[in-house]
Amino acid sequence: MRTKGPRSGCAINATVEALGDPWSLIVLRDVIFGNRRSFRDLLTHSEEGIASNILSSRLRSLVEAGLLTKAEAVRGQRGSYSLTEAGIQTLPILVALGTWGLAHRDGTEELRVRVELLRDGGPELVDGLMDELRELHLGIPRPDPWAPRASAQLQAAYEAALNR
Amino acid sequence: MRTKGPRSGCAINATVEALGDPWSLIVLRDVIFGNRRSFRDLLTHSEEGIASNILSSRLRSLVEAGLLTKAEAVRGQRGSYSLTEAGIQTLPILVALGTWGLAHRDGTEELRVRVELLRDGGPELVDGLMDELRELHLGIPRPDPWAPRASAQLQAAYEAALNR
Repeated sequence: MRTKGPRSGCAINATVEALGDPWSLIVLRDVIFGNRRSFRDLLTHSEEGIASNILSSRLRSLVEAGLLTKAEAVRGQRGSYSLTEAGIQTLPILVALGTWGLAHRDGTEELRVRVELLRDGGPELVDGLMDELRELHLGIPRPDPWAPRASAQLQAAYEAALNR
Repeated sequence: MRTKGPRSGCAINATVEALGDPWSLIVLRDVIFGNRRSFRDLLTHSEEGIASNILSSRLRSLVEAGLLTKAEAVRGQRGSYSLTEAGIQTLPILVALGTWGLAHRDGTEELRVRVELLRDGGPELVDGLMDELRELHLGIPRPDPWAPRASAQLQAAYEAALNR
């Protein structure tokens, strides 16, 4: 990761520099959709088989870029990562990336179904999921605690696809 | 670029593998927003000072991934690149990336203003711009040729910011 300023004043470039590279986006995806919070969880459940040195460097970059925070390990507990508000706001980027992939690449049904839901659910579903992420990672209660959880819809769709 | 299949069946991963790396997104941005169609144009006008070997490799990757096509140079004319339909459909990804950058990074007013418009103009403006790109790159007439051009709005906002 470069420590100098960004290469230009363009907002797209700024994001591309912050998110760094493909693996950073994949790590964010696993934190957001898989709620994987520890190094070990991210490593052992990786669908793409991320290498431990790459995971380690990307987690460090994401913390430096202000997308994740790290709580150091304390007795009997592993170090864990949480999304920052800026990290939570990468969700629409992941949805846009996934929407393109659904249209232009093949994939596995159970890994596609959540992105399909988010693509078709519109801004409300994405906003609802961001509210849940704020609760989970930042301890900010959801604006309407009685509203149905976006994550429950996503999980149900995922499980239905697994059992198909 | 890997020639094997993708590392997983995930739609987000598929896109991340196709778009490859930060520079690929920057090249697409310059083709889409700057209508830079030749190697030389992309190289000499690069805000981020892309190196010629990187530009060359990323153009090749984007052609291989089906996002650009290349018309070879003929007498007196340079080789030029056109977006494919899949390339045009990366626009929402660029808008999502830019929207995040606007919120979480500083930038230069004249380079921010078009992304602000696209963020606030909603799906209609993005769709309108994609229709114009289809006309320009694929020769497909816009559905409503009398509709105001999204690009004219963007250009006017850009020039106003330059003169501010």
